[in-house]
Amino acid sequence: MGKAEETRFWEHAKELTAQMTLEEKVGMLHGAQLFCTAGVPRLGIPPLKLSDGPMGVRNEIHGDHWEPVGLPDDYVTYLPSNSAVAATWNPQLARETGRVLGEEARGRGKDVILAPGINLKRSPLCGRNFEYMSEDPCLTKNLAVPLIEGIQESDAAACVKHFALNNQETERLQVDVQVNKRALHELYLPSFRACARVSYTMMSAYNRLFGEFCSQSKALLNNLLRRQWRYRGVVISDWGAVHDTQLAAEGGLDIEMSVTDNFDQYYLAQPLCEAVRAGKISESLLDEKVERILVLMQKLHMLDGAERKAGCYDTAAHRAAALDTARESVVLLKNEGGLLPLQKKKLKKLLVIGDNAVRTHAPGGGSAEIKALYEVTPLLGIKAVLGGNTEVRWVSGYCPDAETDQGSTAWQAESLKENAGKTLKSVLASLQKKRQALREEARKLAEEYENVVLVCGLNHRQDTEGGDRSSMELPYEQDRLIAEVLAVNPNAIVVLTGGSPVEMGRWLPQAKAVVWGWYAGMEGGRALAEVLFGDVNPSGKLPETFAKRLQDCPAHSIGEFPGGKTVYYHEGIFVGYRHFDTVSVEPEFCFGHGLSYTTFRYDHLSVQLEEGENSLRAVAVCTVTNTGSCAGKETVQLYVRDPVCSAARPAKELRGFQKLFLAPGETGTVEIPLSAADFSFYDPELQVFVAEPGEFQLLAGSSSRDIRLRESLRTVYRHITAE
Amino acid sequence: MGKAEETRFWEHAKELTAQMTLEEKVGMLHGAQLFCTAGVPRLGIPPLKLSDGPMGVRNEIHGDHWEPVGLPDDYVTYLPSNSAVAATWNPQLARETGRVLGEEARGRGKDVILAPGINLKRSPLCGRNFEYMSEDPCLTKNLAVPLIEGIQESDAAACVKHFALNNQETERLQVDVQVNKRALHELYLPSFRACARVSYTMMSAYNRLFGEFCSQSKALLNNLLRRQWRYRGVVISDWGAVHDTQLAAEGGLDIEMSVTDNFDQYYLAQPLCEAVRAGKISESLLDEKVERILVLMQKLHMLDGAERKAGCYDTAAHRAAALDTARESVVLLKNEGGLLPLQKKKLKKLLVIGDNAVRTHAPGGGSAEIKALYEVTPLLGIKAVLGGNTEVRWVSGYCPDAETDQGSTAWQAESLKENAGKTLKSVLASLQKKRQALREEARKLAEEYENVVLVCGLNHRQDTEGGDRSSMELPYEQDRLIAEVLAVNPNAIVVLTGGSPVEMGRWLPQAKAVVWGWYAGMEGGRALAEVLFGDVNPSGKLPETFAKRLQDCPAHSIGEFPGGKTVYYHEGIFVGYRHFDTVSVEPEFCFGHGLSYTTFRYDHLSVQLEEGENSLRAVAVCTVTNTGSCAGKETVQLYVRDPVCSAARPAKELRGFQKLFLAPGETGTVEIPLSAADFSFYDPELQVFVAEPGEFQLLAGSSSRDIRLRESLRTVYRHITAE
Repeated sequence: MGKAEETRFWEHAKELTAQMTLEEKVGMLHGAQLFCTAGVPRLGIPPLKLSDGPMGVRNEIHGDHWEPVGLPDDYVTYLPSNSAVAATWNPQLARETGRVLGEEARGRGKDVILAPGINLKRSPLCGRNFEYMSEDPCLTKNLAVPLIEGIQESDAAACVKHFALNNQETERLQVDVQVNKRALHELYLPSFRACARVSYTMMSAYNRLFGEFCSQSKALLNNLLRRQWRYRGVVISDWGAVHDTQLAAEGGLDIEMSVTDNFDQYYLAQPLCEAVRAGKISESLLDEKVERILVLMQKLHMLDGAERKAGCYDTAAHRAAALDTARESVVLLKNEGGLLPLQKKKLKKLLVIGDNAVRTHAPGGGSAEIKALYEVTPLLGIKAVLGGNTEVRWVSGYCPDAETDQGSTAWQAESLKENAGKTLKSVLASLQKKRQALREEARKLAEEYENVVLVCGLNHRQDTEGGDRSSMELPYEQDRLIAEVLAVNPNAIVVLTGGSPVEMGRWLPQAKAVVWGWYAGMEGGRALAEVLFGDVNPSGKLPETFAKRLQDCPAHSIGEFPGGKTVYYHEGIFVGYRHFDTVSVEPEFCFGHGLSYTTFRYDHLSVQLEEGENSLRAVAVCTVTNTGSCAGKETVQLYVRDPVCSAARPAKELRGFQKLFLAPGETGTVEIPLSAADFSFYDPELQVFVAEPGEFQLLAGSSSRDIRLRESLRTVYRHITAE
Repeated sequence: MGKAEETRFWEHAKELTAQMTLEEKVGMLHGAQLFCTAGVPRLGIPPLKLSDGPMGVRNEIHGDHWEPVGLPDDYVTYLPSNSAVAATWNPQLARETGRVLGEEARGRGKDVILAPGINLKRSPLCGRNFEYMSEDPCLTKNLAVPLIEGIQESDAAACVKHFALNNQETERLQVDVQVNKRALHELYLPSFRACARVSYTMMSAYNRLFGEFCSQSKALLNNLLRRQWRYRGVVISDWGAVHDTQLAAEGGLDIEMSVTDNFDQYYLAQPLCEAVRAGKISESLLDEKVERILVLMQKLHMLDGAERKAGCYDTAAHRAAALDTARESVVLLKNEGGLLPLQKKKLKKLLVIGDNAVRTHAPGGGSAEIKALYEVTPLLGIKAVLGGNTEVRWVSGYCPDAETDQGSTAWQAESLKENAGKTLKSVLASLQKKRQALREEARKLAEEYENVVLVCGLNHRQDTEGGDRSSMELPYEQDRLIAEVLAVNPNAIVVLTGGSPVEMGRWLPQAKAVVWGWYAGMEGGRALAEVLFGDVNPSGKLPETFAKRLQDCPAHSIGEFPGGKTVYYHEGIFVGYRHFDTVSVEPEFCFGHGLSYTTFRYDHLSVQLEEGENSLRAVAVCTVTNTGSCAGKETVQLYVRDPVCSAARPAKELRGFQKLFLAPGETGTVEIPLSAADFSFYDPELQVFVAEPGEFQLLAGSSSRDIRLRESLRTVYRHITAE
């Protein structure tokens, strides 16, 4: 969008606002339905229609209560979750994902799609981690920005969420986050800052930050977001995140959304009118908000509808994008002796074990739930890809239940009904017996079958909005199942699907091949099968550290997850691999890890540095050669290490990455640009980023712990970058 | 397949058969499960696995009863029905359809897929017409043969059904068909004959022909199929079509399938063993059958499994094929004043009326039912294609019911349960009231909305195996609905979906635009929407006559449908357009009719004739030019007329066709070859086809009644072609 056009938008917004009554203005600042504001028909201003969903456009909910309408026409494309998108390390796929989201949002008549979710993964237990991308801000922003741009190509607005520090679900509506400034500015804010440059809207979070609710925080919304970052877009509250009319109005929020149907009583509804009339809040403050919304509407061509893109949904191209992303999201964690891929032609019989082989995940997870046109489960994918020459047998191996589950009250209610009149103890006892029988069945068959694939992991009873996991263990006694199967069949392939890491220590040493599969959308099961059988060479890399034990994770090692009414992020900047690599704790699988069916050789790392007193630009260059026998993709990760610094620095920090497709024998060149900020830490006193002069090490690796090449550079000036 | 290879197959079959016990042989000749024979593990002979389905591979049924197993992995691609395939007039799409069927059959582990259905459409009321192709043998065979070849590319066998004259469902298990020899050989047998040249298997029908059950008919199976046509493939009975051990064994049948679980008591099971042991049936007769089955197995690579294609299912390519076929199947019946296509960008609001807009048809119709991975209904298609700039409202307009329905006892049972205790009269009265209210609602809205699309028609309560319709009227008072809507909104578009023609006279004069949509598979709703909005230029042509009234149809005009215990095909060769055009009855829409959004000019019809005393070859050539402003496809139909003949001849007969894609202004050339048979009639006394010398007229048309060019040719010899 050109400068001139933007100026015209603001002018038109001012003209329109000047014609509006107080009531008309206020109508635009709060939900008039659960996912819709009021428009001003008199002036041709339509309502703003919003929809949930990082994984697709949610089904239609009634305007005044949370039941689905049950329409026959709101089946949509079900995309891989943001955690899966992150595992691709492929900005182009993130952009495609955004394009699908944007086209389907418009296709369904929506103006704003509540995506992407980019909160940093501080703990593996956060219930919404599956909706988020990474523990690292560099990876997050490099994927979130193209995803947002992709959405907004279709005259739909992205809504980056949840700003900020909504890193847990426990007590999310109240919890106060206390975090030191370095962690805030080095870890938790950079992706939001990058996204704020492109996203038309942002969602303010439920939680408090430094005592203030994010949705009413002058510090966060007015000072940081609007003044320092010069964000001119719209801020929308999470649903029910507002608690006070005056604070919200003055705190920089534009639109209050909530969860109840007393729309006139929302804080930014009738009470706001009254506060303005009583002189407590200046009407000009409302004008600013309305103008921002009107500028947004012009960007989306909502005020000159003829030009507006109409979108579409359920197209073959959208499904193809979902499949492409799913394919690149699969992470090959372990593959001893090249057990994978399985040779399709040699497989006469295959045993598949596990509830997750047949479970559809689209309908779960909270607001990210999707009414999918269809969902290819792993078993369906395996059979559809393998074809009819292989006899495939499936047994569940384990069964989910509600009693020992967390997060989902609906499931618990359902189970209570089922088990009415029984004591919890008797229910648990019979469940244990049932599980034992299922394991026994699976174990016996696993002994018989030469080829076995376990499909275990998490489901949306664990990975869900509204609750965090209480442990990193696999639920439903799956550890026992996997161990018992591996004991009788050491070649059993372990596939885990889910949105967040699990402990694997009880069986991992015995497992030769382990694959991680995420919630990978409607074609997820096919993508997984294609990897298992070698039609696709896996290229996913972990966007977060998979710890051996929960207590190894920094927030947990210090007892600060989920915290109480206040949660103290005492681990500071040492989150994820910044912690593990700095204090030398061995993770199970490190950040950036992911194997391939081929091998890659790294060569010739060099760095070109152009430094002046007030400028620093560098480019790291290396080559990568596919030294194996099949084509594949490799993500080269560039970490920077500052060995001597006045401030404590992590052992390394990701500052760039590039994914390459290489045929066997082919060599490609990677070029990763670096700026002063990439050598900097945040100085809380100066409130700027500082790069101190001296030596820096560049580490080019296939993962954060598989560093293949090192190079040093030496700077001579001190560089300052503003927040 | 080469001659040498086939010889080897027969030799190996003989060797294997020689090693088998009587019981082992018999095990291969009947169902050991509902869809599976017994193999001979001792000799490495696997069972033969069959599956229903012209529209896809049916879900898994239990081996010993008819309930679905309920698997999580038998969702498949849902293809357009054979009637929709026929409406494309596109052999390449028929081949693609076959490829999908074959790949999915193999993907699901099946050896034989019970498709295609090619019975001639003698009456519009036949309940399985939706599974059949056409009223014309030339159109049928030109599509069925590539469809079969497509299936068999994947090491799966087609099973052409139902051989022969299974042209009605009423009394199908018993009815005796009496038909004159000309009709038999000119209409009912030619497509089977053409298919028998390529299809590995054929299904013998339930009904009798000339007093003999088809499944036990020496005349049909031994004399005609095997001796005259030299068919060397396998004949499989329809399920439960066998009634006698001796007759079936001697009648040319190879495999008896049935519907009950007393497999050992099937006529070709234990009773066959006993008959052989008692010397009533020669074991060498069994050997022939077993050898044929073993040759089939070798053709399918079942005896050397390593080489066998594994197939696959639910792929994007399969869905794309389903969509391509659906697109070309849509028939634009009427389009006064160029009302269609609707301009997407101008549509602010759209009203969609009709139960068929939201009904999924995959699960219905009898054995052709499909457990579809998904099904895009017309409403979903309309919304997904239109996108979010148009407000789409849907109302049902009418409601199906069970009381007035035919064909489906399941639906009736369900309704009886619902209405237990009420009298039929009171149920009907309340239903009538309900329908009146639905019509009233639709009418009122249709007055309000400028743009209205009605989606009405039939569903699988009418188009279903096991029963014929009793009338050609639209069910559920839809005629009243359509008339009332057109009365208030003359621009309402009428879309009808279904598998067989309906009477339209009560509202057709008032309708400006009418579209016919078939059961067009999982992407049918999208294809329909693309046609309505001009993304696809319709190119479907009716593969059967749409009569104004049932009594205009020949079988009905003479009171010979469905007949009694015997049905007399007294109309002879005058079926479909052969009747309407010969006796000058005006149909509502004639055979071959289908409009386009562009126009085509036909020029320069010429014919090259090479005739010798014992040979006749001709080629008809003409050009077609797209004279409109959008690209489109036209099917040029070539009819032959014999103005003077010793036998009664129809006014014209389709002898070839060719579909062309033409850009605006582009001219294409059509070349249609003709042989002596194309000028012939069947002489029942000589039992051969005869072309008498003299004048013939060639008619090139856009439909059977829109003849654009005529040319004559004169032959000098009498030509004989063997049956």
